[in-house]
Amino acid sequence: MEAKTKIAIIGFGNIGKAVLKAVEASPDMEVSCILSRSPNRVTENLEKSLPVYKHDDIEALKKSGAKVAILCGGSRLDLPEQGPYYAQFIHTVDSFDNHSKVPEYFDSINSVAIKAKKISLISAGWDPGTFSLERLFINSFIPGTHSYGFYGVSPKGGLSMGHSDALRRIAGVLDARQYTHAKPEAIEQVRSGKNPNLNPGDMHWRECFVVAKEGANKEAILNEIKTMPGYFAPYQTEVHFISQEELNQNYTGSPHDGLVVGSTISSEGKKSLIEYRNEWDSNPESTGRVLTAGARAVLRLSKEGKTGAITMFDIPPLYYSVYTREEVIRSFL
Amino acid sequence: MEAKTKIAIIGFGNIGKAVLKAVEASPDMEVSCILSRSPNRVTENLEKSLPVYKHDDIEALKKSGAKVAILCGGSRLDLPEQGPYYAQFIHTVDSFDNHSKVPEYFDSINSVAIKAKKISLISAGWDPGTFSLERLFINSFIPGTHSYGFYGVSPKGGLSMGHSDALRRIAGVLDARQYTHAKPEAIEQVRSGKNPNLNPGDMHWRECFVVAKEGANKEAILNEIKTMPGYFAPYQTEVHFISQEELNQNYTGSPHDGLVVGSTISSEGKKSLIEYRNEWDSNPESTGRVLTAGARAVLRLSKEGKTGAITMFDIPPLYYSVYTREEVIRSFL
Repeated sequence: MEAKTKIAIIGFGNIGKAVLKAVEASPDMEVSCILSRSPNRVTENLEKSLPVYKHDDIEALKKSGAKVAILCGGSRLDLPEQGPYYAQFIHTVDSFDNHSKVPEYFDSINSVAIKAKKISLISAGWDPGTFSLERLFINSFIPGTHSYGFYGVSPKGGLSMGHSDALRRIAGVLDARQYTHAKPEAIEQVRSGKNPNLNPGDMHWRECFVVAKEGANKEAILNEIKTMPGYFAPYQTEVHFISQEELNQNYTGSPHDGLVVGSTISSEGKKSLIEYRNEWDSNPESTGRVLTAGARAVLRLSKEGKTGAITMFDIPPLYYSVYTREEVIRSFL
Repeated sequence: MEAKTKIAIIGFGNIGKAVLKAVEASPDMEVSCILSRSPNRVTENLEKSLPVYKHDDIEALKKSGAKVAILCGGSRLDLPEQGPYYAQFIHTVDSFDNHSKVPEYFDSINSVAIKAKKISLISAGWDPGTFSLERLFINSFIPGTHSYGFYGVSPKGGLSMGHSDALRRIAGVLDARQYTHAKPEAIEQVRSGKNPNLNPGDMHWRECFVVAKEGANKEAILNEIKTMPGYFAPYQTEVHFISQEELNQNYTGSPHDGLVVGSTISSEGKKSLIEYRNEWDSNPESTGRVLTAGARAVLRLSKEGKTGAITMFDIPPLYYSVYTREEVIRSFL
């Protein structure tokens, strides 16, 4: 049996923990070390013994035998710095998800990785990630078709971290969670093949669960939410004031689900439709598994001599799999 | 502007016609010629003037400037012969769909293509094809999850050519069409994350529309259908005897739709689900478009020096697109 490939985890928040779990569940990989800005805190929180080093201890990273580093920091502050830094030393995989800044991030990491003869897979997750693949497939296999992304299609909706944070920054708000819901009538319009022009507010509505501080002016909070530009103003928004206990009991976890759909009716009246849906009770776990499969793909591509920044668009689907090419053809074709 | 890539179409049935349409709709490709066993019949049926040659006129094929031949014959009789034959001379793309014979077909074409320094993309369509990709993605991104294929999920069901043919071979049957329907309760069982063991008859039921010859014994026909091994015996089967007029009026076209779905609940009770659905009013047209995008991908892979038989598992998704890598990242990531 081949030796397991060693993986380093950089950053040990929700995504880092999920990657640890996903790597440990993989028959062909193992975690060689974790790098963190707070190694002591990580060590205390680990259920099993694993080497934990300071985030810039590149010597320790190399000595651990790691072949790929999975970067588990946030897209706003951590990755723009960590991506180009670690790409100097090792293949990297991350889930950078700031869509509008992807080209800039790609460039910053590409030149470094090429010089180091390493591969850096960026934006590997579900969106960007598997959803991006499906948007491209819709465009390639039903040319001329727009693809639409809906989030919170299931009744419980999808937790939005960014919007929850925005609620918590409002004066008088103690705690809050925001769930996004897709509008079923918009989904049906897209499915019918009309390629409609839809504004953000046509596609989703927002539900806020807010814990107000004692004596806070709820009317003012409500007004500030409903008029917040970008976040809530363009949407139909429902606000529920609830107690901290109710929030903790009923609105925990990070569920998310989404749908990519594109459909067109040809000039002869023939309909074509492709849609892709996923549903995750744990958003970090799903991302952790894609990152881990991405690390496997990166290693295979590096054996072919590839270097530089890549995205999931560059990866032959075969390379994510633990199985051989023959097994994949036999089992999945 | 770059010159358009020239494509040859081999065989001009439903799929060949759909490929012609798809290539003509592509800004970067054009059809250089059609090869057929009956060139005269093809010429008579063409709406516009295109060179048509005898199926073995390889000189004419080469002189036409074709870079890729899209093989549009049937999987049972045509492709096992045509695949290895044309692979000697030119890159090929086909939609070979006899799942159990794929490894054999792959081998027969692989050695020829490697020797000729050509690429042969086999089994590119929707199933095998895009559905195969999704089965692999489910397995790679939710390890341990079975993927299930359902066909005829929409109310009208999916036309099965093979089963319609089987009905027509029964003594006393003048004409017939068979529609396959997925069982909604089986889909829900899979979505719930149970990874159930399902027999074919648990997942689908079959609806037959049969035109009996005058004076035929309908009871005998009914019995022969319901007990036909493999085709109908394992399934709940409904048979409707109708007139030829009704068949022609209400049961024409080749609609098909399908769903690939996989879901698992983890030991901590967390659900993960991926599902992929498509719906085609015209099955051949959808296949024709995937074949055409596949031809684009084959050319790009050949520029990287790749040779031999490949499947969609080997293709970086980017390569199907008319757009450049930068455009794809900007528009679809």
